[in-house]
Amino acid sequence: MIVMLNPKHNQQLLAQSLAELGVTAYPAGANRVMIAGNDADLANRLAQLPEVLEVVPVARPYPLASREFQQEDTVIQVRDVLIGGSKPVVMAGPCSVESVENIVDIAKAVKRLGGHVLRGGAFKPRSSPYSFQGHGEEGLKMMAMAREITGLAIVSEVMEPDKVALVAEYVDILQIGARNMQNYPLLREAGKSMKPVLLKRGLSGTIEEWLMAAEYILAQGNPNVILCERGIRTFETATRNTLDLNAVPVVKSLTHLPVIVDPSHGVGKRAFVRPMARAGVAAGADGVIVEIHPTPDQAMSDAAQTIDYQEFGLMVEEIHRISDVLHGTREKTVVGV
Amino acid sequence: MIVMLNPKHNQQLLAQSLAELGVTAYPAGANRVMIAGNDADLANRLAQLPEVLEVVPVARPYPLASREFQQEDTVIQVRDVLIGGSKPVVMAGPCSVESVENIVDIAKAVKRLGGHVLRGGAFKPRSSPYSFQGHGEEGLKMMAMAREITGLAIVSEVMEPDKVALVAEYVDILQIGARNMQNYPLLREAGKSMKPVLLKRGLSGTIEEWLMAAEYILAQGNPNVILCERGIRTFETATRNTLDLNAVPVVKSLTHLPVIVDPSHGVGKRAFVRPMARAGVAAGADGVIVEIHPTPDQAMSDAAQTIDYQEFGLMVEEIHRISDVLHGTREKTVVGV
Amino acid sequence: MIVMLNPKHNQQLLAQSLAELGVTAYPAGANRVMIAGNDADLANRLAQLPEVLEVVPVARPYPLASREFQQEDTVIQVRDVLIGGSKPVVMAGPCSVESVENIVDIAKAVKRLGGHVLRGGAFKPRSSPYSFQGHGEEGLKMMAMAREITGLAIVSEVMEPDKVALVAEYVDILQIGARNMQNYPLLREAGKSMKPVLLKRGLSGTIEEWLMAAEYILAQGNPNVILCERGIRTFETATRNTLDLNAVPVVKSLTHLPVIVDPSHGVGKRAFVRPMARAGVAAGADGVIVEIHPTPDQAMSDAAQTIDYQEFGLMVEEIHRISDVLHGTREKTVVGV
Amino acid sequence: MIVMLNPKHNQQLLAQSLAELGVTAYPAGANRVMIAGNDADLANRLAQLPEVLEVVPVARPYPLASREFQQEDTVIQVRDVLIGGSKPVVMAGPCSVESVENIVDIAKAVKRLGGHVLRGGAFKPRSSPYSFQGHGEEGLKMMAMAREITGLAIVSEVMEPDKVALVAEYVDILQIGARNMQNYPLLREAGKSMKPVLLKRGLSGTIEEWLMAAEYILAQGNPNVILCERGIRTFETATRNTLDLNAVPVVKSLTHLPVIVDPSHGVGKRAFVRPMARAGVAAGADGVIVEIHPTPDQAMSDAAQTIDYQEFGLMVEEIHRISDVLHGTREKTVVGV
Repeated sequence: MIVMLNPKHNQQLLAQSLAELGVTAYPAGANRVMIAGNDADLANRLAQLPEVLEVVPVARPYPLASREFQQEDTVIQVRDVLIGGSKPVVMAGPCSVESVENIVDIAKAVKRLGGHVLRGGAFKPRSSPYSFQGHGEEGLKMMAMAREITGLAIVSEVMEPDKVALVAEYVDILQIGARNMQNYPLLREAGKSMKPVLLKRGLSGTIEEWLMAAEYILAQGNPNVILCERGIRTFETATRNTLDLNAVPVVKSLTHLPVIVDPSHGVGKRAFVRPMARAGVAAGADGVIVEIHPTPDQAMSDAAQTIDYQEFGLMVEEIHRISDVLHGTREKTVVGV
Repeated sequence: MIVMLNPKHNQQLLAQSLAELGVTAYPAGANRVMIAGNDADLANRLAQLPEVLEVVPVARPYPLASREFQQEDTVIQVRDVLIGGSKPVVMAGPCSVESVENIVDIAKAVKRLGGHVLRGGAFKPRSSPYSFQGHGEEGLKMMAMAREITGLAIVSEVMEPDKVALVAEYVDILQIGARNMQNYPLLREAGKSMKPVLLKRGLSGTIEEWLMAAEYILAQGNPNVILCERGIRTFETATRNTLDLNAVPVVKSLTHLPVIVDPSHGVGKRAFVRPMARAGVAAGADGVIVEIHPTPDQAMSDAAQTIDYQEFGLMVEEIHRISDVLHGTREKTVVGV
Repeated sequence: MIVMLNPKHNQQLLAQSLAELGVTAYPAGANRVMIAGNDADLANRLAQLPEVLEVVPVARPYPLASREFQQEDTVIQVRDVLIGGSKPVVMAGPCSVESVENIVDIAKAVKRLGGHVLRGGAFKPRSSPYSFQGHGEEGLKMMAMAREITGLAIVSEVMEPDKVALVAEYVDILQIGARNMQNYPLLREAGKSMKPVLLKRGLSGTIEEWLMAAEYILAQGNPNVILCERGIRTFETATRNTLDLNAVPVVKSLTHLPVIVDPSHGVGKRAFVRPMARAGVAAGADGVIVEIHPTPDQAMSDAAQTIDYQEFGLMVEEIHRISDVLHGTREKTVVGV
Repeated sequence: MIVMLNPKHNQQLLAQSLAELGVTAYPAGANRVMIAGNDADLANRLAQLPEVLEVVPVARPYPLASREFQQEDTVIQVRDVLIGGSKPVVMAGPCSVESVENIVDIAKAVKRLGGHVLRGGAFKPRSSPYSFQGHGEEGLKMMAMAREITGLAIVSEVMEPDKVALVAEYVDILQIGARNMQNYPLLREAGKSMKPVLLKRGLSGTIEEWLMAAEYILAQGNPNVILCERGIRTFETATRNTLDLNAVPVVKSLTHLPVIVDPSHGVGKRAFVRPMARAGVAAGADGVIVEIHPTPDQAMSDAAQTIDYQEFGLMVEEIHRISDVLHGTREKTVVGV
């Protein structure tokens, strides 16, 4: 259960009361603690403590992330973009930031063609120690310049707890990659930063584990988590990964957090990015993140799954029209699992 | 390579010529044989035989199913419905045929709400020998009555080679279920029947294996194969299976055969059927097949994934509008894998 | 629950009594019926019927296969070999039967090097309709000749219900392949044949589904089922499949049926067959089945995973010594899940 | 290719020479650099540089880890234990370090029953932020006390780059857990520490990715990497994970590094730990790591998969006897993939 505390509560008295009740309370953000289980009798006694405003019973193992705790959708504002609102958000950019010219050119295209957020890798997690590992802080500076010119928000990955502060200085949204979905020290630091966090699902992360990873961030008092489905690992080898669009409606039913999809990594082949972006929005996603490049075949990394500007423009157009279809029928919607 | 033969060729002379060339020819439908490999020199020599009209080189291990062999989409007519044409086809009905009243009631709803084909299980593959195994031929008779009343085409599963002739007497489309995707004797019989065949992807069937299964049917000279994605088996347990929508654009790029999706089995929970049907069409599917029932909770099987008439009506409306979105941008489409 | 009937019971009276109790009874072999659930009150009333000898409550969805129903191990005698007894059984032979000379040569080697059963494919399930599909009945005749010469029992695959009688005429053990694990009409026919059946686990078959497939055979009154683990489909591509040795002790704890492993298909590479055969026996398997050939690189199929005679000889030696290790500590064994 | 440098080489001259050849050299440990590709002409020219001792062509994407680079097995000495030598190493201990009394009691049992290394969790990666996260440094101190008393080496997990130095102060072997297999900053720090590193395979890590993760450590000049297979994620739910023993002989053929198996996490149920430990050694593993506790049901975490002392003793006995079987036939071994 989540225990909502009086903002003016006396820490010491609270600790004493909890000790008398024999319970362990875990921090769960400002003026909130989490207590395991949902014992009605205990909830009652807690509710009577002067330090306690309210006790919210939650059965899911990710209480703050669950719809039980918060029914209405979380909408996250990043500069002038709303993520999780009524319009699908579009994030796009190169796999790796390559040069100032390149990132500015791409940023302008993203802006012109209807995108909202510029993505770009500066610190790159690479399977081989002998691959290009990204331009690091220099890359972030290049992205910041592109933001200055276009007004787009920017998102980039952070790979270690120690670098959260540095990356957060530059970006509007911190990205936590699939390989780090269960890197708990990193999740905690990202939580403390209070920056919006784009949390990718791990290649073998169950939906429950993914939401529990989000809980690590929320438990630090940072409510701004954007979930991102980017493909799971299955036996199928025709695609790089298997973009699991089932996860979209499932996750939307379990959590109030916004969910976007990454068809570039999910399917791994250029020709299938646009159809899967469409399908993601049709499944109910709050937006997409894709890899684009003026000349995809010359991209420094992920060339096979990167689309060009023309394809990107068509994609943006289509997902908006599909989003309109969903809004058209939303009022008639029947609910129930 | 596929060797197209003169319809009036002399069988004996052909066999002799092929023997002289030292090649093994496999039957691949009327006036067609398949020869392994694509050796240009051999193709040349074959093309000069008087019995040969044309030699079509195909690299894929499913030559007849491949786009290399046939570029334009296969459109299959079943009664007055076109499958693989410009409009999404809608197949719906109960998991199991329960009674005449029940199937007729459902058929009328399917018809009224815009569906084209009535599905229903008569011979049911059940994991346990102690579960209800379907009404068998009686069930098929009930479906035929529902067809008579509504004019809908009907589709039902056949599970063994021996029963193909019997089931084909009743249905418009033979269904081969996921468990039987690699039941080769069954595929061969279905091929010989010349009836349209709905071929479901196996739970662990790769896309390549699925197309090779279709090839078994095509190689009998039956061109009417409809592919159906219905979920693969992965580690995720939040959904019954993982509906693999990536397969839709991938398969559409590899084969000319129509592809539909089955979100009922794919995701296994009622609330997620409609979003996944939408996503399937947005990904490029030629239609959907879903389980519906007037009172889903009382369905004899698959209750958890069966939707009611109201939800079905909304689904039909949405997928048509999404199909329109795709047609709107189709002419601007850029191609390339 | 399993209801054991008096062998002299009156069918009509029994049917009447069951109807009065309002229960559905499924056939479960001679003088046995299965009734869903384990209601104690119902069990009591059933036990009082004159036709009923005993009522055995079983919670598992595969009652006849479960250890609840039969605690002691099933030992199956095939000619002079015991499968499921104290010594590991060794089955070996070529993927496909190629010629009389070839199969006799291999049979002699199997015999000489300590094998018990000769395997060989006559009816071959092939992914492509254009691949060699086996010598069919001719292949079975060749195997029978090899049996005559060596005295080895023989096992070969049957792929369709209609062919069960034919194949059963030749072989000592009917094999049901991985692709057909849930081919229920085939399982039923194999059950009716009363021949020992080697039931391979499907590529995406859960352990529970596998045991329920065995139940189809057992429910026909055929107690002679040998389970065979041969690899499941996972994301790993370094091996052809993932031989799931965890399944061995798990299955041994759930069922009384013997379990053997097939490292040839499980791992798919020659160099790893012997280590995985050892590991299978160390995990508790009752034996192994492997593909061998005098000159593996020239085998007609599965060359990559076929071992030669020398490697086979070493394997047989090792698995017997490992089996001895297990017997050495068996008496000290502590039990409990 | 790996370029072995003269220990006395002049850095500046080398850099200049490489620049002239137009190649990028990545550090790969003391007096070694890695250059992508294996161009024979380039290798030749590199070999003629005065700074270069030798050029070793390696095709695998994990050159230092590959058998191409080093044929003979790496044997790692930790205190008086040899890992990767002729005897299987046994690591055992509780999931979490609970108290001094508890860890000392367990350590004594490990020692008495033939174990070599004491495992125990101090910094615990937990799926929920509200679960016990381990005693941290206090836990390490308790382990160090147990080492003092028993002489056993100790191994414990480190979860973030920043804590490597701290954990390395206490332990003999740093453990990197499955969730962190691709936490590259952590791998790099572990590499710099020069401590032996136990690198667990990730739940969805391919064998190639796992070896590339090891390469991150090796490339820092730390040759002491012990690989640990601990189960992958598959569709099967009867076991917690699927211990992939196929990986053992595959990895042994690809790399010279020692490989051990963790049946406790791999299978997740107490009754199956001993059989799978046996199977791991039979497959060729260099040892095992298991969770033990005097009263498993009262263990603070992982109770279901923890074995007691008696079962542990039987396991140690059995794996030694199985190891002897392998040594008995090793000299007769035939090789080849």
